Amino acid sequence: MKVLALDSSGLVASVALIEDGVLLGEYSTNFHKTHSTTLLPMLDELMRMLSLDIRDAGIDAIAVAKGPGSFTGLRIGTATAKGLAFVLGVPIVPVSTLAGLAYNLWGTDSIVCPLMDARRNQTYTAIYRFADQVTDTEERSAGHPADPHIPDRERRLKQETLVEPCAVDISEIVQKINDRKDKVIFLGDGVPVFADYIREHCVVPYCFAPAHANRQRAASVGALAMTLMAEKNEIAIPSDQFAPDYLRLSQAERERIEKETAERTG
Amino acid sequence: MKVLALDSSGLVASVALIEDGVLLGEYSTNFHKTHSTTLLPMLDELMRMLSLDIRDAGIDAIAVAKGPGSFTGLRIGTATAKGLAFVLGVPIVPVSTLAGLAYNLWGTDSIVCPLMDARRNQTYTAIYRFADQVTDTEERSAGHPADPHIPDRERRLKQETLVEPCAVDISEIVQKINDRKDKVIFLGDGVPVFADYIREHCVVPYCFAPAHANRQRAASVGALAMTLMAEKNEIAIPSDQFAPDYLRLSQAERERIEKETAERTG
Repeated sequence: MKVLALDSSGLVASVALIEDGVLLGEYSTNFHKTHSTTLLPMLDELMRMLSLDIRDAGIDAIAVAKGPGSFTGLRIGTATAKGLAFVLGVPIVPVSTLAGLAYNLWGTDSIVCPLMDARRNQTYTAIYRFADQVTDTEERSAGHPADPHIPDRERRLKQETLVEPCAVDISEIVQKINDRKDKVIFLGDGVPVFADYIREHCVVPYCFAPAHANRQRAASVGALAMTLMAEKNEIAIPSDQFAPDYLRLSQAERERIEKETAERTG
Repeated sequence: MKVLALDSSGLVASVALIEDGVLLGEYSTNFHKTHSTTLLPMLDELMRMLSLDIRDAGIDAIAVAKGPGSFTGLRIGTATAKGLAFVLGVPIVPVSTLAGLAYNLWGTDSIVCPLMDARRNQTYTAIYRFADQVTDTEERSAGHPADPHIPDRERRLKQETLVEPCAVDISEIVQKINDRKDKVIFLGDGVPVFADYIREHCVVPYCFAPAHANRQRAASVGALAMTLMAEKNEIAIPSDQFAPDYLRLSQAERERIEKETAERTG
């Protein structure tokens, strides 16, 4: 199984190619350039460095960060993913931007709270954790608890959603975290914006993810897409059925509605 | 603080640029091309995409995976790092390849065991864990235990070395893990080689890291280098003092010694 992954939901533009359990290549930049001038050139360059022609690289699916995020960034990611999937005749696997971001921290026992700056004092956020997936082996051995002669102790971690992606005030998500009492790791471009608030109001042990793990990575989107596909094949959809999930209205749409409402009531 | 990081210790070639807590760009490929034809072109391309000229990009240090790993890969990484550091007039921060690999899993509560295939039935390996670093705040509040009015619950995680990098038989490191009884995550290009052995002999809960986290990343080398520099400034050394750490003799050296010994005793 070979998956090409894209994330252009925030300031980061990122492309990655994964084959089964191995990352063949990843290229990410975090720079004030519009993704329309970075995403496809980066993909082209990555393919060239891997000596691959994208048309016969054996790609089985396109994984894409579906949102939330920057409206323009999501539209560029969507258009790119749809175009590639259409030409290659492969499905799209949409992955929540927040779930992909949290997947950077695969393997932690803390709960994970991605924070994206949504402007207007809001954050796109969610809460995830990594829990043991019940495997066949565990089911089989459930009747023989703690048998030391069963050699297989292999854990398979599954990312669980504790709070669904939402656009809320920072106070709301910190309150939810305080109520849970679990230790937490924050990451994302919302951290620099909300760190002071967190330091003042978070009463559970918390930390901020370091540079190599705190922003969007296409490799995380792709790796998560592969586990989601293994769980539920229907997550892969035809390219024409895919649309981004903005989570809230764009500024232009909000202003139009406000104007229309004002006109009706005015 | 801006750090340029390189890792060419294994099959992966990876370059990354980090500024303070943010990854500005990362480019990694895992492909059977010699690193002499990938590493510098990838760096050049990354700089171009970030609209930076490497000579005035404000780079403060070059972080490099110092070994263990492929002898040829390490020599290319060393030569590249030394050349760049010399021309830019900045120091080199050598980081153990195994510590950099383990740093991919920053934030986990499991112990982390990177495994690199060292051929001849051996693995380059080590064991790490992430522990709470004692911060000034904690030191200050140590006299006021569990005071709920102290709002700062910020944790700073430090990567600790439990078993130093070594070249050993897989049985030896699995025995050490079994003795410790902690749950463990394995990663690295040694996993496909030794997974069957681990499944048969590892008696503690274990898992294998997924695609986005299981191979060398320059971003991890760079992020780890920054924390090491913050702890101890002397880790940054002049370029002419840097040499890779192969951990064991090369095949050519072993054969020469064997031949000389045979000649002396023959």
